[in-house]
Order: sequence, then structure tokens, then C-alpha cells
Amino acid sequence: MKMSSTSRRLLLFSNSSMAGEEYLQFASSLINQFKDGWGMSKALFIPYALRTHEDYTEKVKKAFHPFGIEIEGIHKAEDPVAAVRSAKAIFVGGGNTFQLLKGLYDHKLIDPIRKSVLQEGVPYVGWSAGSNVATASICTTNDMPIVHPPSFHALALVPFNINPHFVDADPNSTHMGETREQRIEQYHEIEGMPPVLALREGSFLEVHDDSAFLRGRSGAKLFRTGKPVEAFEPEANLSFLLESS
Amino acid sequence: MKMSSTSRRLLLFSNSSMAGEEYLQFASSLINQFKDGWGMSKALFIPYALRTHEDYTEKVKKAFHPFGIEIEGIHKAEDPVAAVRSAKAIFVGGGNTFQLLKGLYDHKLIDPIRKSVLQEGVPYVGWSAGSNVATASICTTNDMPIVHPPSFHALALVPFNINPHFVDADPNSTHMGETREQRIEQYHEIEGMPPVLALREGSFLEVHDDSAFLRGRSGAKLFRTGKPVEAFEPEANLSFLLESS
Repeated sequence: MKMSSTSRRLLLFSNSSMAGEEYLQFASSLINQFKDGWGMSKALFIPYALRTHEDYTEKVKKAFHPFGIEIEGIHKAEDPVAAVRSAKAIFVGGGNTFQLLKGLYDHKLIDPIRKSVLQEGVPYVGWSAGSNVATASICTTNDMPIVHPPSFHALALVPFNINPHFVDADPNSTHMGETREQRIEQYHEIEGMPPVLALREGSFLEVHDDSAFLRGRSGAKLFRTGKPVEAFEPEANLSFLLESS
Repeated sequence: MKMSSTSRRLLLFSNSSMAGEEYLQFASSLINQFKDGWGMSKALFIPYALRTHEDYTEKVKKAFHPFGIEIEGIHKAEDPVAAVRSAKAIFVGGGNTFQLLKGLYDHKLIDPIRKSVLQEGVPYVGWSAGSNVATASICTTNDMPIVHPPSFHALALVPFNINPHFVDADPNSTHMGETREQRIEQYHEIEGMPPVLALREGSFLEVHDDSAFLRGRSGAKLFRTGKPVEAFEPEANLSFLLESS
């Protein structure tokens, strides 16, 4: 069944920075390309994935300053729910996914963010953990469970999961821990789990209403229960992933 | 404060198998060296970390057969709690740590296993996820959170955490995801978190009452809040880790 047309503008990055570059240099210049069209001259930043909210927000502020995108940290708001309700754009940074999702639950932000993004059309930009929490659940994060959120269900701005920082298995490795693919396959051994879009570093997903396109430089793999793994190149149309099952 | 002397016999492996070897070949031959001294001719196996309990138990049975260690899968028991209470040894296999811990909670096995191991002196052998659940919490597992256990607190047979399959950072890597060390450091940014013993593949910990020794071939690193990371070679005495803080 096709979802009814949803107002939605999302940029979901695998990662924020490439090796040897300044923090957020890679992602911020790409985000800037959407600034005027999506009206993102000012964004509410959610720094809960790291514990140093003020330092983190300052780093992000500095990265977006050259593009004229003004960043306001939600940790400074007296009423975080009100801050979400009045935000013109919502940026959610990486770090630890469990910590981030617990922060969203603790501050009762799940429903307000969903409402802003899906009903009011407020742009949502996430990278790494910030992409994980935008999806159906955080069940395919790579992070350590350093805190215990009340649920792994997340913002469900899209009806599938993302695995950020995806790495293909190294055929020469002698390491015996599970490969990333094996971990995702273990997830799909559980009945009824949604597709997992595995974004290599340098990839991001652009979602506009009911359209989704793979962007960036490095492609992605799609894991679905009972189907062979599919590979997608940059610019692939992934809108079919927005149809709920 | 030193813990009062605790009856306890544990073997906690980073991993079960080395590259190019049969499943469990590495660990089973080492476990066999404790068989007579610890009375482990028969063991109750807990296969909850994988979903194919019967297949998993058969594989483990086959690996221990050459050593005359008889394996019985807990999934066949009508009353899993009674099975734990009557077990002469408890073996807990790897797979997904979240699934394993949820299985222990679902079957109400946390307290019965603690009682058998810490009060009755029943030997406990774990590898990979089976080592994670033996410790204070599963907060330093490498696995994906594919199911949601009611808590991350685990069996607490020792008062610290383990990170199995530990890998040192590759200085030449351009991957931007957190290194294992960075993930453990994020855990220690939370106040009051216990030490984390990071066991490289090929390492295991032998605990006998209030003594703990690092065994195997590859050494370990110890992470503690506010202290520099320490490296330990095989045969190191780690008994100080059994003192609760």
C-alpha cells in the first residue's frame, strides 16, 4: 500500500566528516545546497548524542557559520518541546545513538518532532546517530548501548531503518567478530523487521515528500527479509522504500 | 573494599573460534583443560544468543564431544529455572548479546544463574556474548540492538564489564565511525561506570573465587574512568578487578 502523500523534507547522512577534513565540512557544504530551497537559514540543533551539549553545539555552529545557517542548541531552551514547535529546521548530530534516543524520550520530543516534520513540513537533517533516530528504530545502529532508552522505536520519519558508516566485509580479515552484513542479517532473522538501508560513508539520502534519492559519492546496500542484498549507486531512486508494507 | 571471598569459577572468552579453524575449536580445547579440576563432564548450554537453538546446540555438542563433555540445551527443558538449578556447569554461547540477555530475562534466569554460580560454585563458561552477559552490564557489547531487553544489567558474576573481540584502532584507517576505544571512552563519560576489560580475540579470563588471571595468546586493555588505558599481557594477575569499588 502506498502511503498517502506526506509532506516531508529530510537529509539523512551516513557521516558528517571525511578523513582529513574539518568537522562537518563534508556534510555542511551539501546541506547548504538545500538551504534556500528548504528555508534553512536557522536551525534548532539537538546535541543529545554527546554529553557536552554546549561544546558540541559550538562546533556545529562554527561549521555552519560560513554558509549563513544560524544554529541554536535545544539544551539552552527552557522548554524543549516549545523549541521544537517553533523551529524552522531541525538538525540532529551524531555521537551515541542510545544516548540521543534516550534524550528524545526524556524530553518528550518524539511526538513533537514527528508532528513538525511530517505535518508542518519542517526540514530534518541528521548525520550518523541523527540519521538512525529518524528511522523506524535504532536497532541497526553501530553504537554501544551505554544508556538504556525505554524503547528502540525512533522517530519513524521513514518506514525503514538505516545503518550509517556502513563498511563492506574485508575478505582478507581474520577477525572473528560478526561483519556488518552478518549483524544486519541477524536483525532480519526476526520476523517482520523493516528494510535496512546501509549507507557507506560519503552517502546520504534526500527525502522530499514521497520521493527518496541516494546522494553523495559512495552508494548503499539494501537489506530486506527474504530477498538478496541489492546494491545502489549514487542518484538511485529509492522512493519505493517510502511505501509502507 | 575487598569483596568477601566468593565461590566462583568462570572462564570468559573473547571469542570461540580462530580464523581457519572449526567452530569452537580454539575455546573447547582450552575449556577441556579445566574439565577434570572443575567437574565439567556435563554442561547445560544456553543458546539464546542465536535464534536457531537446536542447530546451535548441535554445533556446540559436536565441538565438545571429542573431550567427553556432554552438552544439554536449555531450550529442551520444560522448566529452564529447574534446569539451571540442577546444572553441574553452565555454558553460554555467543551471537547477539541483546537477544541473549532478553532470553535470560524472559525465562527468569538471572537470579537462578547468579545463585548457582556465586553460591553453589557451579562453573560458568561464556564466549563472546556469553562473556558480556556474565559481567555487570551489556553496555560494552559490539552487537546491534536487534531486540530490547528490559534492562542492560546482566548477571554481574564479576563487578566490571568486558568488551569481547577487542580490536586496536588502525592508524591508517580513513573510516570515520568511532574506534572501539572511543566507544568505550564514551561509556566512561557517564559517571560511576565500572571498568571495562577489553579482550582481544584469543584472550580469555580465568576467575577462581577471588582470583582472576588473563589467559590466552593476545592480551587485553583495561579502561577505567579517569585513568590512562592500561595494557596487560597473557598471564597477568587481574584479581584487583574483583574488588568492588
